[in-house]
Amino acid sequence: MKQRLFTPGPTPLPEEVRLSQAKEILHHRSKEFSVVFQEVRQGLKYIFQTENEVLLFTASGTGAMEAVIANLFSSKDKVLAIRGGKFGERWADIAKIFGVEAIPLDIEWGSTVNIHLIEKKLDADPKIKAVFTQLVETSTGVAYDIQGMAEIVKKRDAVLIVDAVSGLGAQPLLADEWGVDVVVGASQKALMIPPGLSFVSLSTRAWRLVENSDLPKYYWDFKKTKLTQEKNQTPYTPAVSLICALRESLNLLKKEGWGNVIKRHAQLAEATRKAVLALGLELFGEANSNVVTAIKVPLRVDEKNLRKIMRGKYGVNVAGGQGELSGKIIRIAHLGWMDFCDIIMAISSLEMALWELGYPLKLGKGVAAAEEVLKE
Amino acid sequence: MKQRLFTPGPTPLPEEVRLSQAKEILHHRSKEFSVVFQEVRQGLKYIFQTENEVLLFTASGTGAMEAVIANLFSSKDKVLAIRGGKFGERWADIAKIFGVEAIPLDIEWGSTVNIHLIEKKLDADPKIKAVFTQLVETSTGVAYDIQGMAEIVKKRDAVLIVDAVSGLGAQPLLADEWGVDVVVGASQKALMIPPGLSFVSLSTRAWRLVENSDLPKYYWDFKKTKLTQEKNQTPYTPAVSLICALRESLNLLKKEGWGNVIKRHAQLAEATRKAVLALGLELFGEANSNVVTAIKVPLRVDEKNLRKIMRGKYGVNVAGGQGELSGKIIRIAHLGWMDFCDIIMAISSLEMALWELGYPLKLGKGVAAAEEVLKE
Repeated sequence: MKQRLFTPGPTPLPEEVRLSQAKEILHHRSKEFSVVFQEVRQGLKYIFQTENEVLLFTASGTGAMEAVIANLFSSKDKVLAIRGGKFGERWADIAKIFGVEAIPLDIEWGSTVNIHLIEKKLDADPKIKAVFTQLVETSTGVAYDIQGMAEIVKKRDAVLIVDAVSGLGAQPLLADEWGVDVVVGASQKALMIPPGLSFVSLSTRAWRLVENSDLPKYYWDFKKTKLTQEKNQTPYTPAVSLICALRESLNLLKKEGWGNVIKRHAQLAEATRKAVLALGLELFGEANSNVVTAIKVPLRVDEKNLRKIMRGKYGVNVAGGQGELSGKIIRIAHLGWMDFCDIIMAISSLEMALWELGYPLKLGKGVAAAEEVLKE
Repeated sequence: MKQRLFTPGPTPLPEEVRLSQAKEILHHRSKEFSVVFQEVRQGLKYIFQTENEVLLFTASGTGAMEAVIANLFSSKDKVLAIRGGKFGERWADIAKIFGVEAIPLDIEWGSTVNIHLIEKKLDADPKIKAVFTQLVETSTGVAYDIQGMAEIVKKRDAVLIVDAVSGLGAQPLLADEWGVDVVVGASQKALMIPPGLSFVSLSTRAWRLVENSDLPKYYWDFKKTKLTQEKNQTPYTPAVSLICALRESLNLLKKEGWGNVIKRHAQLAEATRKAVLALGLELFGEANSNVVTAIKVPLRVDEKNLRKIMRGKYGVNVAGGQGELSGKIIRIAHLGWMDFCDIIMAISSLEMALWELGYPLKLGKGVAAAEEVLKE
């Protein structure tokens, strides 16, 4: 059966990306590779919307998150971690293991962040050195107000650290213009390549923290990585085939244009939300992101069955809920190599599966609503 | 120009491996991926010659080396690190950064290890908790006597930790039979896939150290990784396309048989050494490994020019020297997806390039010597 991924990573791969990986491998110390890597460095800066070097690691996104903590902080440092879902918890968990005190700012799963709460916390404790957040909390599909946070944080002696693993390239994030200090990204989302690479950009303020950090790091060493990258090399043998694939996908994104890529994601997200509402379903929480739309599973519908029918009969793979949301929501990603027809497939198979499970709906109503959005 | 890699990683890719990567990506939480991962787990145990779980990380080999230190030790622990080349230095460097005291056992670059020196050091200081070594020190091409080291170490209250990044699957290493506690491997060597994955196997004795370690780790957490792998999953989104490629290469290796794979490498290495000597060249140091042969560059020959001609005229890419050996040696790898014809190409282009540079030799003499070895 034809299988399609509507999961918030890994996302579908463009043909150029897939075929580039069937090529013979390049040696990582060859001139050919340096040329590829130089292009990739430029392309990453464009996607991150920064003039700063974007550090590349052969690792999952979680590895890059750990790298940020190990490079910027010292034991007993204090940081503030926004926790509104599974990935918010991760920042706090890693910090704790490294002896960094992470003060949680818990918000209800599915809610956005009231940025005045951040302001209050920072003013109450001037020792807080950083605010950790997600751009999009993938487990709930909620995008946070990073621009607003940056306004607050940059007025104080702290840095703003954004896990943009799922949001990078889909949700607006202007690292330099907004003054975001650290941005973490990964390869298997809007960047449209397989998982295995992750990225970190750092502002001048963030580099100052790197100078004073006393936590141990070797593989993750930011200073060494930056120095080596500036020679179009990597400190250790990197995932060469993924870097070559990244060149292909960055070229595709450049051709489309950053603004258009973001707009495409916004439209597909809007179409998905309108379709879901037209079917009489409820969105989960504030469900506002360009990345993934979380949908409450209706009471009399079994979530496992719903996803099983979508996958088994129509080849449409959507995600379930994580942690406390398991069984309660499904999540349809509109992320990466996605267009009009993809969203129509996802909505239509959702309609068909709900109908099969006895949920009262008028077939085609969701699709019609999506078409209304996408005709513009 | 047709380019061929005779570098000690990355190594050439079999067609099955290359094409598997052109496929659409699997979701890492899907049943399909679990099936692949289960096969890979079994195949890795076969290549590592162990019944123990082989932990898989999305990272370069250096990442797995750091993981070993972060998981097995506590700050102020003492370890013994054999340093006979660039990679021996790496163990000591990482240990130091993590606050572990690495007592160096320096041996001349190009020499094997006198294992009685290890015995002496261990007996002089019973606080030494581990011996770190390479299986093959890739920078010099020398293989160490791991079986002998294991005999010594297992009689004492210490563990033997082997960086087998370049040697795994090429040089004999029977983890369980010999009693080697920790083995580190990587994907881009005899495993014949692109770089980006690394591996760690641990004995029961090694797992006991994991229980008592106080160093910080999150992405590298061995306990979490093992528990998750036993469910045919990984803790974080892994390099799915590389894992699928690994299934292909492990199948090829299984079909050939572990013993035959090792024998093939041994023969190609022997052919290379004999050819080099027949050309009147000198091997560097004890040059005894199945992985890579280090050859002294004759006095009147310029190393850069030699490699440039081999690469530029014949598409044969060999490695130069690293660190203090830069300019003094070239290294021809006979590693991974390599056979008779590959070695003949390498030797022949070496003859042609040396001849062009005015080195006195009889064309064909190296090839003839290689053929003599390989006709058996």
